[in-house]
Amino acid sequence: MRQPTMLAAVLWSLAAALLAEAKVHHHTWDIAYHRKSLDCFEKLAVTVNGEAPGPTIRATQGDTVVVTVRNKLETENTGIHWHGIRQRGSPWADGTVGVTQCPILPGETFTYRFVVDRPGTYLYHAHYGMQRVAGLDGMLVVSVPDGVIEPFAYDEEHTVLLMDWWHKSVYEQAVGLASDPLEFVGEPQSLLINGRGMFVNSSIPPADCALPPALFTAVPGRTYRLRVGSLTSLSSLNFEIEGHSMTVVEADGHYVRPVVVRSLFIYSGETYSVLVTADQDPSRNYWAASHVVGRKRETPSAMSVLSYAGNDPRAPPPTPRPAGPAWDDAAPRVEQSRSVAVAHPDHALPVPPRPDRTLLLLNANTRIDGHVRWAINGVSLRFPATPYLVSMNRGLRAAYDQRPPADAYDHRSYDVGSAAAAAAAGGTVASAAYRLALGSVVDVVLQNAVALNNRSETHPWHLHGHDFWVLGYGEGRFEPGRDEAGFNLRDPVMKNTVALHPMGWTAVRFVADNPGVWLFHCHIEAHVYMGMGVVFEEGVHKVGRLPSSIMGCGRSRGLN
Amino acid sequence: MRQPTMLAAVLWSLAAALLAEAKVHHHTWDIAYHRKSLDCFEKLAVTVNGEAPGPTIRATQGDTVVVTVRNKLETENTGIHWHGIRQRGSPWADGTVGVTQCPILPGETFTYRFVVDRPGTYLYHAHYGMQRVAGLDGMLVVSVPDGVIEPFAYDEEHTVLLMDWWHKSVYEQAVGLASDPLEFVGEPQSLLINGRGMFVNSSIPPADCALPPALFTAVPGRTYRLRVGSLTSLSSLNFEIEGHSMTVVEADGHYVRPVVVRSLFIYSGETYSVLVTADQDPSRNYWAASHVVGRKRETPSAMSVLSYAGNDPRAPPPTPRPAGPAWDDAAPRVEQSRSVAVAHPDHALPVPPRPDRTLLLLNANTRIDGHVRWAINGVSLRFPATPYLVSMNRGLRAAYDQRPPADAYDHRSYDVGSAAAAAAAGGTVASAAYRLALGSVVDVVLQNAVALNNRSETHPWHLHGHDFWVLGYGEGRFEPGRDEAGFNLRDPVMKNTVALHPMGWTAVRFVADNPGVWLFHCHIEAHVYMGMGVVFEEGVHKVGRLPSSIMGCGRSRGLN
Repeated sequence: MRQPTMLAAVLWSLAAALLAEAKVHHHTWDIAYHRKSLDCFEKLAVTVNGEAPGPTIRATQGDTVVVTVRNKLETENTGIHWHGIRQRGSPWADGTVGVTQCPILPGETFTYRFVVDRPGTYLYHAHYGMQRVAGLDGMLVVSVPDGVIEPFAYDEEHTVLLMDWWHKSVYEQAVGLASDPLEFVGEPQSLLINGRGMFVNSSIPPADCALPPALFTAVPGRTYRLRVGSLTSLSSLNFEIEGHSMTVVEADGHYVRPVVVRSLFIYSGETYSVLVTADQDPSRNYWAASHVVGRKRETPSAMSVLSYAGNDPRAPPPTPRPAGPAWDDAAPRVEQSRSVAVAHPDHALPVPPRPDRTLLLLNANTRIDGHVRWAINGVSLRFPATPYLVSMNRGLRAAYDQRPPADAYDHRSYDVGSAAAAAAAGGTVASAAYRLALGSVVDVVLQNAVALNNRSETHPWHLHGHDFWVLGYGEGRFEPGRDEAGFNLRDPVMKNTVALHPMGWTAVRFVADNPGVWLFHCHIEAHVYMGMGVVFEEGVHKVGRLPSSIMGCGRSRGLN
Repeated sequence: MRQPTMLAAVLWSLAAALLAEAKVHHHTWDIAYHRKSLDCFEKLAVTVNGEAPGPTIRATQGDTVVVTVRNKLETENTGIHWHGIRQRGSPWADGTVGVTQCPILPGETFTYRFVVDRPGTYLYHAHYGMQRVAGLDGMLVVSVPDGVIEPFAYDEEHTVLLMDWWHKSVYEQAVGLASDPLEFVGEPQSLLINGRGMFVNSSIPPADCALPPALFTAVPGRTYRLRVGSLTSLSSLNFEIEGHSMTVVEADGHYVRPVVVRSLFIYSGETYSVLVTADQDPSRNYWAASHVVGRKRETPSAMSVLSYAGNDPRAPPPTPRPAGPAWDDAAPRVEQSRSVAVAHPDHALPVPPRPDRTLLLLNANTRIDGHVRWAINGVSLRFPATPYLVSMNRGLRAAYDQRPPADAYDHRSYDVGSAAAAAAAGGTVASAAYRLALGSVVDVVLQNAVALNNRSETHPWHLHGHDFWVLGYGEGRFEPGRDEAGFNLRDPVMKNTVALHPMGWTAVRFVADNPGVWLFHCHIEAHVYMGMGVVFEEGVHKVGRLPSSIMGCGRSRGLN
């Protein structure tokens, strides 16, 4: 045995002391179908211990979370992604079926174990096919340790999980998406706030549905931190509390330079903490509302009630329900994206000055092999039967497509404003991956374009395993060699999910320093189903021994 | 190299000559959800290459069938059972998930390869959870080799696949069955003949649905062999062709002493060949109908049209639609079961004179752990996460319950006519198995009883991996030491599926000479879901090397 040096011994003592503080939080979850009436319309939902959405997981920075998942879905597999947790040192716990693990089979148990190394507001959800649409999701809140002061103050906190909800099943949605001609999933029947909505077409709503649900009860003068997360499957949202301004203080686990907004634009996969002070007339209640933006608003806005203490917590406010902003005005959305993309001055993490590699990714809606698909630089992602993490770590080269997508699309000749260009783009369906040099600095510029339907939509892109700096948003076509000049390299916030606005571009930078294989994808379920994602590998041979529990499918059958 | 003896060389030449005759039939099947309107109501079905039911497989005795199954169900697994094929020497190809293989995962390919060693009429269907309800099924017809004469003559043959059909999904059915209080699946919306039915509640049926489907067109004077199979999920059926008698000549792949019937009672999992001669007025068409029997008839009978050549093949017959027999008169059903249970005199296979072991299996409907279940001698079967074939062959004792169910229930004290007895019976949910001595002769006496609802139903029991001799049917309680005297040991037919009639018993005998692990179960999907089955192991250490393609789940993860 090697003799430890004095320094090592000291470090060890420190680490041990820290470990002594860290807690391990054990959860055992049965994943099963149950009938739920989240919006007064009964349908099957995939539940966690009978609940949809699932329980909020709470932990403190440095703690370990252990979730034992028991699949009780009878014939359907599952996998759960811990959205925003970087899984440093535990890439096999990312829960992305086809990328970091085989699916969890019915009757089987899989244990996720990971350290929550940063405080903040995170999410979890099924990451298998379009299963998330069926309701397996929830929030994961990581507090700062005792004694650590956050750069803002509040009296109490509440979680606000925003969702959209369909009455048809995931299976029906997927069959439509795979059809020729494409049958899109359509607009949701309801929006949900903390798992509650009101389907306005219900003939006679049950008593429990006659009143909008309560958000929380405020004490006059107090300030509340709302941890708001969106796990919509399609919709971009605007969240507001009637008459109350909000101060945005956190985005995806990072402190932002505080920004006061009247309402919060939030995209699927994003989280924000907003501070709300109960500074209005306390003799009445107020609407808290979630509205669709970015797509023609066919879904009624979700309403809940912010009550002031002493009032009937569910008494409808005396004012008309808020109508929300114009759905088709993107300008205030882009503006808010820019304004919340600045780090808190005391918490800005320095940006590497330049990238080692730049990926310029065209989001192209096109037709491949007779089906409408999304392709990124000509490649429409199909998840392989063998998870990349296993196949790349073990050298199973036949398990995925060896040819990576191109680093850039042909930005000089491609007309991002032309539906004909989209139609002509074409591409291939492949299980490809970008191989990134471990430790390298990577810029990704997401380029939007018009789709086959001649419209350009918002795409919230989510990166697994990393946070990235948000360098900038632009309009139209990103021009390499010119538009980098507008990047914010001084104090950009880090995030894990970022909006690509209609007909615009979004630039992010990250350090590829987390050995593993990581998905980067549009967080709209139908879009990733249609291929809208890319895979990043970095240092896959440096990960520790892979647990055999992530193997067993495809070419990983028989491996240990 | 060892020098072959002359004898071995001769044997090899003979085998090679035989092999040269045998064909290999390759099929590649994509299993996927598609919208189907089998009864003029559109719903999702699990399809084979887009079709539900799937194509009829045809082969000749001695041929090899190879079916490459590609699972395109997105998040759902599958497995296909070749119903009636004994899989001698290929127990891993039986397709029973949890017993003989791990499920086939989405994106994966599994190849079934088996020899069809007996001529006859067989079936195939999903054997995973209740997936069969969703439509993955079809027929498998094995012809006699050229030159072999069957003990009856006919001019032409047609297949007739009978099904029942629900509009709600398998998931909805399963959630209801697992609920407390139990919500049973209810009666089907339609019966189907060759995948076609007419949901009478359709508001305005599409043009294609306005007329009953054609069965086939007959030429006057000719005789037709109808290969009739039932893959209902719940319903016992009566099949008739108006005005035409039927001569039953084959049951489950065995020739029976010909019996003329006016209509055919058929239970899920059974097949019969009946001869029908076109001997009626050729100027008109005739109804061919399938009716529910044994349960209160809430489902309209399925109608198709037997046309005579020269008539419009879909012209409705001039007569009222046949009403079918009284649903609740079990006597003619028991009588027909007895009359078709006699082997053709030239094809009777000699019965071993006595059993080495007798299992007296009580079919008890009872409540276990708060759920209504079916228990056999106190054990309600739960399929293990690791297939028995692997766990037993490899000695993975923790993968299943080591304690087998009892060989007999307490027939002296249990009152089979008492719902209170059923309620008091209780039991355990377990992954147990009977271990049978290889080569031993086993009698199984199935004992029916009244259920919690005070009724006694028909249960069609199907044995995998074997045919059994049908020794007899009796009323009330089987009395060991007395009722064996009534067994037919002279010329019983062999079958693989047999009806257990209401408040009766059914006795069968088989030789446990097929190394492997085999399910024996009620063929009603809801009943096997509720635990109504037992598992037989025999000579599991004598099977050849198990293919690693059946492994990968549960404790077989990592095995080769």
